[in-house]
Amino acid sequence: MANTEGGKLWGGRFLGDTDPMMEKFNASIAYDQRMWNADIRGSKAYVKALEKAKLVTTDEMNQILHGLDQICGEWSKGVFVIKPEDEDIHTANERRLKELISAPAGKLHTGRSRNDQVVTDMRLWLRDAITTLTDNALQLMSTMVERAAAEIDVLFPGYTHMQRAQPIRWSHWILSHAVALSRDVDRLLEIKKRVNVLPLGSGAIAGTPFDIDRELLMRELAFDGISLNSMDATGQRDFVAEFLFWASLCLTHLSKMAEDLMLYSTKEFSFVSLSDAYSTGSSLMPQKKNADSLELIRSKAGRVFGNCAGFMMTLKGLPSTYNKDLQEDKEAMFDCYDTVHAVLQVTTGVMSTLKINPSVMEAALSPDMLATDLAYYLVRKGVPFREAHGISGKAVFAAESKNIALNQLTLEDLSAVSPLFGGDVSSVWDYRSSVEQYSAPGGTAKSSVAAQVEQLRDWLQKRTL
Amino acid sequence: MANTEGGKLWGGRFLGDTDPMMEKFNASIAYDQRMWNADIRGSKAYVKALEKAKLVTTDEMNQILHGLDQICGEWSKGVFVIKPEDEDIHTANERRLKELISAPAGKLHTGRSRNDQVVTDMRLWLRDAITTLTDNALQLMSTMVERAAAEIDVLFPGYTHMQRAQPIRWSHWILSHAVALSRDVDRLLEIKKRVNVLPLGSGAIAGTPFDIDRELLMRELAFDGISLNSMDATGQRDFVAEFLFWASLCLTHLSKMAEDLMLYSTKEFSFVSLSDAYSTGSSLMPQKKNADSLELIRSKAGRVFGNCAGFMMTLKGLPSTYNKDLQEDKEAMFDCYDTVHAVLQVTTGVMSTLKINPSVMEAALSPDMLATDLAYYLVRKGVPFREAHGISGKAVFAAESKNIALNQLTLEDLSAVSPLFGGDVSSVWDYRSSVEQYSAPGGTAKSSVAAQVEQLRDWLQKRTL
Amino acid sequence: MANTEGGKLWGGRFLGDTDPMMEKFNASIAYDQRMWNADIRGSKAYVKALEKAKLVTTDEMNQILHGLDQICGEWSKGVFVIKPEDEDIHTANERRLKELISAPAGKLHTGRSRNDQVVTDMRLWLRDAITTLTDNALQLMSTMVERAAAEIDVLFPGYTHMQRAQPIRWSHWILSHAVALSRDVDRLLEIKKRVNVLPLGSGAIAGTPFDIDRELLMRELAFDGISLNSMDATGQRDFVAEFLFWASLCLTHLSKMAEDLMLYSTKEFSFVSLSDAYSTGSSLMPQKKNADSLELIRSKAGRVFGNCAGFMMTLKGLPSTYNKDLQEDKEAMFDCYDTVHAVLQVTTGVMSTLKINPSVMEAALSPDMLATDLAYYLVRKGVPFREAHGISGKAVFAAESKNIALNQLTLEDLSAVSPLFGGDVSSVWDYRSSVEQYSAPGGTAKSSVAAQVEQLRDWLQKRTL
Amino acid sequence: MANTEGGKLWGGRFLGDTDPMMEKFNASIAYDQRMWNADIRGSKAYVKALEKAKLVTTDEMNQILHGLDQICGEWSKGVFVIKPEDEDIHTANERRLKELISAPAGKLHTGRSRNDQVVTDMRLWLRDAITTLTDNALQLMSTMVERAAAEIDVLFPGYTHMQRAQPIRWSHWILSHAVALSRDVDRLLEIKKRVNVLPLGSGAIAGTPFDIDRELLMRELAFDGISLNSMDATGQRDFVAEFLFWASLCLTHLSKMAEDLMLYSTKEFSFVSLSDAYSTGSSLMPQKKNADSLELIRSKAGRVFGNCAGFMMTLKGLPSTYNKDLQEDKEAMFDCYDTVHAVLQVTTGVMSTLKINPSVMEAALSPDMLATDLAYYLVRKGVPFREAHGISGKAVFAAESKNIALNQLTLEDLSAVSPLFGGDVSSVWDYRSSVEQYSAPGGTAKSSVAAQVEQLRDWLQKRTL
Repeated sequence: MANTEGGKLWGGRFLGDTDPMMEKFNASIAYDQRMWNADIRGSKAYVKALEKAKLVTTDEMNQILHGLDQICGEWSKGVFVIKPEDEDIHTANERRLKELISAPAGKLHTGRSRNDQVVTDMRLWLRDAITTLTDNALQLMSTMVERAAAEIDVLFPGYTHMQRAQPIRWSHWILSHAVALSRDVDRLLEIKKRVNVLPLGSGAIAGTPFDIDRELLMRELAFDGISLNSMDATGQRDFVAEFLFWASLCLTHLSKMAEDLMLYSTKEFSFVSLSDAYSTGSSLMPQKKNADSLELIRSKAGRVFGNCAGFMMTLKGLPSTYNKDLQEDKEAMFDCYDTVHAVLQVTTGVMSTLKINPSVMEAALSPDMLATDLAYYLVRKGVPFREAHGISGKAVFAAESKNIALNQLTLEDLSAVSPLFGGDVSSVWDYRSSVEQYSAPGGTAKSSVAAQVEQLRDWLQKRTL
Repeated sequence: MANTEGGKLWGGRFLGDTDPMMEKFNASIAYDQRMWNADIRGSKAYVKALEKAKLVTTDEMNQILHGLDQICGEWSKGVFVIKPEDEDIHTANERRLKELISAPAGKLHTGRSRNDQVVTDMRLWLRDAITTLTDNALQLMSTMVERAAAEIDVLFPGYTHMQRAQPIRWSHWILSHAVALSRDVDRLLEIKKRVNVLPLGSGAIAGTPFDIDRELLMRELAFDGISLNSMDATGQRDFVAEFLFWASLCLTHLSKMAEDLMLYSTKEFSFVSLSDAYSTGSSLMPQKKNADSLELIRSKAGRVFGNCAGFMMTLKGLPSTYNKDLQEDKEAMFDCYDTVHAVLQVTTGVMSTLKINPSVMEAALSPDMLATDLAYYLVRKGVPFREAHGISGKAVFAAESKNIALNQLTLEDLSAVSPLFGGDVSSVWDYRSSVEQYSAPGGTAKSSVAAQVEQLRDWLQKRTL
Repeated sequence: MANTEGGKLWGGRFLGDTDPMMEKFNASIAYDQRMWNADIRGSKAYVKALEKAKLVTTDEMNQILHGLDQICGEWSKGVFVIKPEDEDIHTANERRLKELISAPAGKLHTGRSRNDQVVTDMRLWLRDAITTLTDNALQLMSTMVERAAAEIDVLFPGYTHMQRAQPIRWSHWILSHAVALSRDVDRLLEIKKRVNVLPLGSGAIAGTPFDIDRELLMRELAFDGISLNSMDATGQRDFVAEFLFWASLCLTHLSKMAEDLMLYSTKEFSFVSLSDAYSTGSSLMPQKKNADSLELIRSKAGRVFGNCAGFMMTLKGLPSTYNKDLQEDKEAMFDCYDTVHAVLQVTTGVMSTLKINPSVMEAALSPDMLATDLAYYLVRKGVPFREAHGISGKAVFAAESKNIALNQLTLEDLSAVSPLFGGDVSSVWDYRSSVEQYSAPGGTAKSSVAAQVEQLRDWLQKRTL
Repeated sequence: MANTEGGKLWGGRFLGDTDPMMEKFNASIAYDQRMWNADIRGSKAYVKALEKAKLVTTDEMNQILHGLDQICGEWSKGVFVIKPEDEDIHTANERRLKELISAPAGKLHTGRSRNDQVVTDMRLWLRDAITTLTDNALQLMSTMVERAAAEIDVLFPGYTHMQRAQPIRWSHWILSHAVALSRDVDRLLEIKKRVNVLPLGSGAIAGTPFDIDRELLMRELAFDGISLNSMDATGQRDFVAEFLFWASLCLTHLSKMAEDLMLYSTKEFSFVSLSDAYSTGSSLMPQKKNADSLELIRSKAGRVFGNCAGFMMTLKGLPSTYNKDLQEDKEAMFDCYDTVHAVLQVTTGVMSTLKINPSVMEAALSPDMLATDLAYYLVRKGVPFREAHGISGKAVFAAESKNIALNQLTLEDLSAVSPLFGGDVSSVWDYRSSVEQYSAPGGTAKSSVAAQVEQLRDWLQKRTL
């Protein structure tokens, strides 16, 4: 049954040698052109290895290097012209090289496959992207740490379950988010190690049959290691998957911080106020000032995790080595990079310019938040904590029944609950004294928060040197 | 603590009234311009409601309608110029309207909010998109059903667990995938009902305080119903989430079909051969012909599910009404549409032009695939199935031990396994007779497969009228 | 190379005929026993079809039916004993049947495969589960609608972007969530239609070669239709995937409502107070009352979507027909059912017992929330909305500059902003008048909210009859 | 409006002080009892810190330690009785302690919160789980590496895009999967570092106000570090999220290997044959032998990723510190552990007992797979690769046109394509010579594969010491 007859019989939408929809579906140039620089860097290193292996002459190598530099210039200036037959960045650059230097261009791909070429390009690109994101994250952390240092004396309610829990320092809150970012940076640097491994020289699947010096390639491209197995090297995208998940966890952290800040910036809390530069108005309601920046930050965790989920699903059950399905790797990687890059910078802007309202923050502290301290008062008098917790709970109930604040209970009221309460109980009702008790490492006492600032400053310094 | 001081103290990256990164982060014009037509249609309907409510005069209405038509013409011709301050398609169109007709333009947004405007635009856009995708899916189904009708006499192995199971018709396989698509179409039409509900007239949150005739808006925009509650209308994106999941399930079906076809197009199976139009070569290996189209189809299930997963995560825990997080709805919706649109068309192309190799397919049938029929032979002689299954299994083992095919066992061999085997057992070893037994509805007998073809033709006719 | 040698050479952890870990890995009885009733119902119908097809005698049928009833009784009483060799519920029930009635038991599986049996069981089970969940959802909706009817006079701030937007009715808020649930119910009923299709009679892949009357099976099991294609019938799990996504979207709705309520139950908002039955205390802080129920409701959206994401990923790229991968369908389905079942009931409890604080809610209304009304005041005097929005914005700024509420601006102050303000502007500053303007369908006026209540009552009545 | 009245008015399902559904919904004891040992270890360390801080006497400490040991014994023997009021493992153990030793039990929770207690338990539990999984993974790798060493001489087709690409060693294929596992192990060990950080001493949110020596706790529990910030310590679950994603990526690797093996075990490929211990039969088809183990392995990637997706969605947008939503962490963690634990062991079993069919594997090599070598033959004669690729392609086409194998083209045929072909071209057609060319690091030459074996043996040795 002939192809065309088949088409006629079953009413296919398309009858011809090529299907424009398929060509568009197949092409990646629309997005992979973004790796033009990495592609050229990879080719420049590769031609040096070809020359060493005597697969091109020194003269040919120089022609190729010169041609590649010209192409590099065209891309830099934005004058490189993509042609319809340029399926991807690799064919575009090689096509252009042939136009520029003719014959020797045909030798550049000797022993190389797009399978090892594309993954080399991606690793080079992502390595640079990681460097940028690391800088972005460190700048955000630095902003946060310095802000925490400057505002260390501001107290406000610490919440658990979105309910007032205990008095804490505002800086303690800031640092809790900075510490999460420090783990993100550490994880990103670990991923970078695994990104920075040379796959070039793996061919399509079996390796290279020529004397391609992979150590030379590694040095030329500043990789830290060489892939162990050619099938794995061309067919795995662990480094992409790891990066996508990294982005997801990092933005989940920022979604948490954004959620806190949105809460704190409601009229009802009024603890913080965003700079106008990070707020927007309403097309309908003249009085509105919306924290759009925070909402966008919160939302992007979903977006990047979507990229991760999609790519993981694409990988699931895929046979080994290169399958075209892997082409989904690039848009996901680019989108995650762009998103995290923007989010980190906008968050830095938000945290640099946010105004706090210390008087409202302190005014939100309420005596019931010291009920734990009241229990601890009894613990210090020898009452087992479980019992002390119960007694303090009864005091809370007594105050609620009288519709007064916990610290307005008289000594008589308290004594009715437990005979152990004495006149010194009044010392409990001081928020500043309360927080100072929490001086163990990680706590909210001034000394402890100051120590956290110092630890993070040290940590930052080590990573920014 | 002043804003700028704050910035100075904590070294924020940006100090000024606006942050270009934030503006870019906030703007949606780069992608929502795609809804220019829906936005204009919505505004044309809205101005008619304003006129009826006497909020604009008839003359003002006509000026606005004329101006909107001009803008429509500019977009159609590709000459509409987006300006830097055009944050989204709504502000772009209104800004342009003001340039064209001055004062009356300022009345168009009366009682309307971007909250109800954007969701109206999206519903109009998606309604059209669904119509297109329905057509694409019906065309693919039609191609498949007609192909099944034409090739109904071809037998080949049916596989379960990727292992040869029973002889079936090739058309039975085709139809199994067409039936899945028919559910996709039905689901899509159900979603369309829920898409086609008018939110306009809901304002930002509380509804509209003017005599806006929502029935008129519904009729003008050809919606089927009116949203019940303004808070829900502006803050829900169920129709987007449903569409994203629809796309995911639909492409999961096509990933399954693609996987089958990839298997069948391996050298080892050699049942089918893709048209060159849907295959590509290798940059390294001259002999390669890869089924890239199928690999891309398979991969896209991941991509669209990524969009779904990302958007669901964005929705999770969001407070009610409009939050900027919802801006993630559009790129996900567009990408899913584009992807499914392309996949359905490419799949139609693949299925129209695929060549099958009937002789190889039939040659792949092997007597062990009739072991079930051998058991049924005994069942018909009164042996309980469990016992018959065991006896047939022993026969399979006997053949394997002798290293011969199951049908090469002599009557003597078989009698040793069970005395019930008689000379008529030879009738079991005919593949064509075997499949003819499966004549119950849904089975692989010719009559049953032909009936499936007819059912699907009827089904298609009802939906294409 | 012999199997055992192989094992010896490479140090495998396990050398023998069976691997206990593999047996456990493979078995599903631990969870699929939950479908014991559906499995028995399916077998009872099937044996009737076998009798009609003369594959069992009437007497054998009666023995089988009687045996199955006995097994049913054992399960009901919790005395059914699972044996180690019972891999799944199907083999367990058949094994027991054989113990009870001997020989005829071996005929029950004639022409049936576990492939069509298991999917029949699942459809029966899920059909019942959907009925229960529909009831749960309707009960929640009914609670909400009646509460909305009872509390229709309570006003409070409507929020967008978590910022105060416009005054609305509390009942308007309740109904916004009830309307979302009405879509969930409608979707669930659509899914039920697709669940309620008979796959039995499809065999393993090719259909049934016997005169099994599938119409009889359909009637016996109260299905609405018969599967069209045996390969599709045994290999597709669309109905499970749809249900998992349904659960995800439904719980995303409830996560939204829970998030609102958590916000409203913070000390800072104090609009609502949860019943103690749905709150918990702290092991450390005696004063804490945490809205654990709401937090759990919010969290479960993630859990059920995880089931959906996992199963979709499992389905991706799977070859057609039955593959063991499909065994992942059941735990996901059960967990989603259990979770939604619990969440709907707990939410009903929360919404039944929640106390609201109307005085605090109304006190939270502030004059700036009427800035839109102030603009509309001007619109009614002929000012184009865009201009009116700007003037109102200036008034807001003027009030902020003077540090007074918007309604405290004198007529003189207002006139300085626009000469159109007259003495009648004072009428703007009444929250109850404000909401009454929003009387178009879907709005927050009393008449409009009351109409929504009526619409939903009608809707509920139709679905509960 | 009173609570009960409210209930009556709106028809809530439940009216009383407690709602059994809510209690069940809230309780975690059903699954967190699994951490009984970690919980006891944590408490034993904590009481030592309490004693050092003089919050319990030495005698009290000893009583508590003794009581905890008794409880430990009860759990070990399976005789610990959970009571209805035991909401979680922490309350269960403390309740039992009180029964055993009375008064001093009430002091154990001094300064501790369930917030820091539960996360300490989880970290202890997961640390042990990671140790086990590391062992499982190393055992699988070891099996694979030794198998690769033993079967190094077996050649078979390497596939890309599921199409025959180039001849490779079977061991090269094995090692490509072992290398992926080595990255999994490295990642797991990195995660372990972050798991192994002490949160105890963080209290509910603010830290501890007592002289709790966190260094002592760290040493007692063999943690490597101490959490920096108490709010972060109690509210973050990065270590869980990381572990869930780790499991997802690891099982994605095994889904890839399983997919390859399923392909290789089809009748059509017949390269490998699973041991019966890892295969199952069919309830219908007597001849079937299904690779259920491989299908289950493939499917579990979806399941574990579902856990990851669900938990990430739960985390998204959550406010900081402890929220009950975090309770979703444990079931996901346990299920991922159990799944990966089983998959790694079953995979080890499969790889230990799998039989290969070397003669079929080599027979599947076909001359067209040497088309790349044919091109390289010309490259070695100075033809630029692009041109050589084209010439080889023409030779492939010539052979196809004549319907003969590529190596059956005469020298005359080849000369017609290019005059550079000489008599020495015959040397190309040797599969064993072909693979030997690929001797660069990572290639498929024997020396290169042997080097990979050595590298992995060294790698394994370092991690198993």
